[in-house]
Amino acid sequence: MPKGIPESVPDDGLTTRQRRTLPITAVHTGPGKGKSTAAFGMALRAWNQGWSIGVFQFVKSAKWKVGEENALRVLGASDQGGTVDWHKMGEGWSWLQRSTEMTMSSEEAAKEGWEQVKRDLAAERYRFYVLDEFTYPMHWGWVDVAEVLEVLGERPGSQHVVITGRYAPEELTSFADLVTEMTKVKHPMDAGRKGQRGIEW
Amino acid sequence: MPKGIPESVPDDGLTTRQRRTLPITAVHTGPGKGKSTAAFGMALRAWNQGWSIGVFQFVKSAKWKVGEENALRVLGASDQGGTVDWHKMGEGWSWLQRSTEMTMSSEEAAKEGWEQVKRDLAAERYRFYVLDEFTYPMHWGWVDVAEVLEVLGERPGSQHVVITGRYAPEELTSFADLVTEMTKVKHPMDAGRKGQRGIEW
Repeated sequence: MPKGIPESVPDDGLTTRQRRTLPITAVHTGPGKGKSTAAFGMALRAWNQGWSIGVFQFVKSAKWKVGEENALRVLGASDQGGTVDWHKMGEGWSWLQRSTEMTMSSEEAAKEGWEQVKRDLAAERYRFYVLDEFTYPMHWGWVDVAEVLEVLGERPGSQHVVITGRYAPEELTSFADLVTEMTKVKHPMDAGRKGQRGIEW
Repeated sequence: MPKGIPESVPDDGLTTRQRRTLPITAVHTGPGKGKSTAAFGMALRAWNQGWSIGVFQFVKSAKWKVGEENALRVLGASDQGGTVDWHKMGEGWSWLQRSTEMTMSSEEAAKEGWEQVKRDLAAERYRFYVLDEFTYPMHWGWVDVAEVLEVLGERPGSQHVVITGRYAPEELTSFADLVTEMTKVKHPMDAGRKGQRGIEW
């Protein structure tokens, strides 16, 4: 990816410098591998800039991605780079009382996750957000896509947001600045292999 | 990605346990973002397993991916997880004398990088290799694809190899266990934005 001259310069009245700090909304979607993995790879760059990172995992099982979680926690706790907060729906959101969380359905938990993201965006709590597998609550109608776009469109400051998962709503990909589709070409599980430690998680 | 039952069980005489430790060859290709980023994300999982990681960057410019490099160096130097060695063609391969490296063409440097990978594979030096942008020396004919497949096919032990870059040769994707194509759907540079610190590097 060259740092060179863009193909066209938009007529938006912004300077190059202003355009450089515009908040990015990125979406990693498609049936292939690497959607979340690439988001956590992006978080390494954000960490290296000293940015505060908030990860919100909108998945029921908290077991997956423990490698990335451990790595980012070690980085966040190191004396270099930015901070890392890692929130998991699957273990109960960290900001909820255990007793509250126990009685929640997946739908309620997903909605509550989004409410917290809204609060954090309003407060400019993080500079870089990973909303991991957040496409699913939108796809299932648990979280309103129009509201997501409104909140993202009006978020203050320069907060970057990366959303991962299959079935990204078309309105979201239209809205986003950066959209990558991961296409599955070949996977070892097709050949009857099971998931491998260190490779799959 | 469920850990469940594979769709078919191969008639290869291996137990599930044996299949679980088979060395994986993964290829991230295509014109979209996230090929290298996802490879470095995979390295987080490898690190979390305590595996030794060797990164070989087959690119002329050493400036890119400094975020991922710094993060993986901090992880490698921490008291948890595996070790990390990061080798960059763009700064001169670490195992070469500066005077030798200065007189090398890009083609010679790429060939020398591959020779070192061969030596390291033979010695089982690392458990997890990222051969970043290694598709290009193959695409340009600097490194012989047939030899790469032979070396990878005969590598000892359980050494995992991830190769990134556009134009992955068809023989390589046929050989690989895991192939993901990153498709560019939309990119901010299309809208006239330049690369952003913390996002692009």
